[in-house]
Amino acid sequence: MDHMKSLVYFSIKKATVQTISEYQQYFSEYLERQYISKEPKNLYEPISYILQLGGKRLRPVLVLMSSEIFGTSYTKALDAALAVEVFHNFSLIHDDIMDDAPLRRGEETVHEKWDLNTGILSGDAMLIRAYQLFENYDSQIFKELAQLFSITAIQVCEGQQYDIDFETRENVTIAEYIKMIEFKTAVLVGAALKMGAIVAGVGDQEKALIYDFGRLLGLAFQLQDDYLDAFGDPKSFGKQVGGDIIENKKTFLFLKAFEHGTPKEKKELLGLFSLNPENPSQKIELVKSLYEDTGARELTRKEIEKYTDKAFSVLKKLDITEDRKVLLRSFGENLMNRSV
Amino acid sequence: MDHMKSLVYFSIKKATVQTISEYQQYFSEYLERQYISKEPKNLYEPISYILQLGGKRLRPVLVLMSSEIFGTSYTKALDAALAVEVFHNFSLIHDDIMDDAPLRRGEETVHEKWDLNTGILSGDAMLIRAYQLFENYDSQIFKELAQLFSITAIQVCEGQQYDIDFETRENVTIAEYIKMIEFKTAVLVGAALKMGAIVAGVGDQEKALIYDFGRLLGLAFQLQDDYLDAFGDPKSFGKQVGGDIIENKKTFLFLKAFEHGTPKEKKELLGLFSLNPENPSQKIELVKSLYEDTGARELTRKEIEKYTDKAFSVLKKLDITEDRKVLLRSFGENLMNRSV
Repeated sequence: MDHMKSLVYFSIKKATVQTISEYQQYFSEYLERQYISKEPKNLYEPISYILQLGGKRLRPVLVLMSSEIFGTSYTKALDAALAVEVFHNFSLIHDDIMDDAPLRRGEETVHEKWDLNTGILSGDAMLIRAYQLFENYDSQIFKELAQLFSITAIQVCEGQQYDIDFETRENVTIAEYIKMIEFKTAVLVGAALKMGAIVAGVGDQEKALIYDFGRLLGLAFQLQDDYLDAFGDPKSFGKQVGGDIIENKKTFLFLKAFEHGTPKEKKELLGLFSLNPENPSQKIELVKSLYEDTGARELTRKEIEKYTDKAFSVLKKLDITEDRKVLLRSFGENLMNRSV
Repeated sequence: MDHMKSLVYFSIKKATVQTISEYQQYFSEYLERQYISKEPKNLYEPISYILQLGGKRLRPVLVLMSSEIFGTSYTKALDAALAVEVFHNFSLIHDDIMDDAPLRRGEETVHEKWDLNTGILSGDAMLIRAYQLFENYDSQIFKELAQLFSITAIQVCEGQQYDIDFETRENVTIAEYIKMIEFKTAVLVGAALKMGAIVAGVGDQEKALIYDFGRLLGLAFQLQDDYLDAFGDPKSFGKQVGGDIIENKKTFLFLKAFEHGTPKEKKELLGLFSLNPENPSQKIELVKSLYEDTGARELTRKEIEKYTDKAFSVLKKLDITEDRKVLLRSFGENLMNRSV
């Protein structure tokens, strides 16, 4: 019996992973069909360029998956999924300008490959294009999607502004930091899932629950990103371990260390965060020790667990069949294991 | 009888001008009520700042006026009018970055007063905010407004890109130039009028006609802007006469002179447009002579007349009462006389 159960679970789990990569493929195929050579070239080529740089397409996959979980073919959700991906890439273009970033996914950023003006204008056109992608839905669904999209997009802008503001502020609270990452990252994950639910035409309660599942999972994911920057495995993290420490970024680990550290530890931390050594390895090790000693590492790990648990407990309230809950849960687990 | 007629016309004309300034006032009052202190301040203060810089508010006035011309109280059109003004100011913020402009309406531009990042991000938030302003309309009207808004906004982006491209292109045709100013300026005038018609719920034909009236009037206005830059009265033009010549801008006058000039005149014109003298008065006079001699001045004047006439002939087809046509016509006349 136990053997049976584990077999079923295995097959569902396998099917899930398979499904995610299937959705990724459906979406990629749909995206490729969008590339048309349009005039003026200097406006549209950067848009094709950034969209073709790739990435895991997790946000659009969530739109498609959510639609099917609520009983509507993913094919009906493709335009909403594309809107989410176009918006996400708009925000990458404009954020890369603001961060003066030379590279995105290992390739030149738009403002580097072209110029500042192209980055601004192509980004603007993408934001408008995202709204246009809802136009194939009837007016009721259109309004619901556009409304959710607008509030989410505004929050992403607000999150970006808080992130910029925090760089030059000394007294950022944990609550403010959580709100910043919620707006900058988590709400779009919630919105992606809710869009699938809107396309599927489910009730308000289900829409609110699936949104919350995504928002909480997004928060857990972003906190984990902070955690892995210091304590991740360089092989699987995908980014440079210690990057936040090198850039003196006030991550959740930093704020927790500052909250719980002794006066001496706080002073040490501030001292290390005022340095920009050519070889940062010693600085990274010292900051990591402080994150351990102050309890920040453990407290951050617990916070990640808290949001992950919260996300999964929201799942239980959803009015969908058990196998579909397993699907969402295993997506969440894969996401937190960084295996999707 | 003739006396009576002229009295009636006078009184209508007076009422119209009165009406425009009344609409301006209604709109300004509505705009002022929007200013709320919102967090994050660095995102929202620049938005209040640019919206308070003023301007004639002609685009929102057109939304309100159009709504009433089609029989619906302007109060129902206030949000659509605000969306148009918010969008227009979004485009000013981003355009000022692209043009590296220090001043807007005699005050510091947003990216000068704050910084580049603030200009980009506040602009983005305004573009999203414009869509949100349609949310008070029911879903049918919402979709129609948002759809018109999106296509118009995309065209404004395309127009801006063409404008940038033309700076470094030698072979811009008259047709390309007309398309550029149509997209960059005229379509938003058409869209403003059409939004009033959408709010009033008129039929498709009326919507198409009022859009075309605005589009054609917008083209005439923009061509006249080119004309007045060289041949306007410094007292009434409002901008520095000769500004386009100083900046070597390929305006309609330039393109027409280049189209109709002799090889010698073309060479002279290109020569003058390669200079950036400290004192530009002689250059301005020589370029203006060439605009006269090549016939460009007269041809541009005729083109302005052509588009104005086209706009007014569209009015005739509109299914509204005669006094309302007079209202629109006199708005157009006032606009072309630069008295609004």
